[in-house]
Amino acid sequence: MLSKSQISYIKSLHQKKYRKENGIFIIEGIKSIAEFIQSSYQVHSIYYLVQYQSLLPNLPANIKLFEVNNAELDKISTLQTPQGILALVHIPENPVLSIKDLKNSFTLILDGVQDPGNLGTIIRTADWFGFKQVICSNTTVEVYNPKTVQATMGSLSRVKIHYLDLPSVLKEFKLPVFGAVLNGKNIYETDWGTEGLVILGNEGQGISAEILELIDNPVTIPRVGEAESLNVAVSAAIFCSDISRNLTK
Amino acid sequence: MLSKSQISYIKSLHQKKYRKENGIFIIEGIKSIAEFIQSSYQVHSIYYLVQYQSLLPNLPANIKLFEVNNAELDKISTLQTPQGILALVHIPENPVLSIKDLKNSFTLILDGVQDPGNLGTIIRTADWFGFKQVICSNTTVEVYNPKTVQATMGSLSRVKIHYLDLPSVLKEFKLPVFGAVLNGKNIYETDWGTEGLVILGNEGQGISAEILELIDNPVTIPRVGEAESLNVAVSAAIFCSDISRNLTK
Repeated sequence: MLSKSQISYIKSLHQKKYRKENGIFIIEGIKSIAEFIQSSYQVHSIYYLVQYQSLLPNLPANIKLFEVNNAELDKISTLQTPQGILALVHIPENPVLSIKDLKNSFTLILDGVQDPGNLGTIIRTADWFGFKQVICSNTTVEVYNPKTVQATMGSLSRVKIHYLDLPSVLKEFKLPVFGAVLNGKNIYETDWGTEGLVILGNEGQGISAEILELIDNPVTIPRVGEAESLNVAVSAAIFCSDISRNLTK
Repeated sequence: MLSKSQISYIKSLHQKKYRKENGIFIIEGIKSIAEFIQSSYQVHSIYYLVQYQSLLPNLPANIKLFEVNNAELDKISTLQTPQGILALVHIPENPVLSIKDLKNSFTLILDGVQDPGNLGTIIRTADWFGFKQVICSNTTVEVYNPKTVQATMGSLSRVKIHYLDLPSVLKEFKLPVFGAVLNGKNIYETDWGTEGLVILGNEGQGISAEILELIDNPVTIPRVGEAESLNVAVSAAIFCSDISRNLTK
């Protein structure tokens, strides 16, 4: 049984303002919760229907547990169809990014991605292809948005997310800079080498003018048909896949 | 000025039941409407804010035009942020599919894709890579769902969509059948040849058992990291891209 103030506190976390104020975000579903418990994230509390009790792994003693009923879960859940279990997780400090994290690997950089689902899908894809971190411009949508968290399907627990000033990042770390643009070099003929930063832009506007100037290698997915553009999560996936293909051939 | 019954009619089309009953669906945004007008679809009527009047192209005389105000548009729109112009379009007859449509090309086949956004994104991606049609199982989400239509970004006006019994399709058309699975052959080493059917499965369950048996070439996107799976629209995009790469090299 939850108190009114508990319910209203958790509901407030559906909004960015209160997530930021409290340093807490929401995750849902048993699989995702299990992954976050095993990660470097600190789980604050878990709210579960009675039938999920036996599925909870052996938990660190500092995680608070609350059994809830369906009506309560409906109120605190961010989903249309709640998944029976929900947890609050502490938002970590923005991790420090060093050149060691970036050398001998590829890192996605997002310049103003706005759709929460796109950001989440990109993080899931990055995780599949073994990319260890994603760097976001400060204009990119907040990663703790419930739609983003859900779309990562647990990958947020593994892929490090940095919000940084992109021009500074590109100038500080002297790595090859690739960018997804509409008039660049054919992606299938790109010499990726063994390391680099790969920039994807905003859904409508693409990569901003300031960042475009800092790209060494403009790259394009050749268009055969008539669509005007590709979804940014789709472009990111095709970039990750082609990089992965090159590294393993 | 719209009548109450006009508003309630258009609002009813937000629901699948009434789209089916009336044979009408909704599209929104000037770019999308322009593309549908130039396509084989038959546009029924257009509802626009006064500032969009000058943007309307020379229209066939049989399209009914209604100037609306913001309050009316808010009521009839399917979007949180309406785009100033909305149209009703006739749902076409399920087009006839012949072997000629499929020979010497690649066609995506969706076996139970459930998320409207995923279906729309797949159609947009297919259009980018020049795929002329997408075949959906009868268990796949309805393509005239507003979220699907929106996610296609106008590509629905160009890519033909067939809803068919998949086992019959696969048995009738004797073409190589590729399927996206978790334990198949490395996609980057796949010999695609010059034609084929490419099956993608449901978000949670993958390809159904009945269809799995009909696959000649099980294909896998190699996993480097730890995500359990890829989003289906992401997988579809990587398949389309790799096929396109092979056809042009």
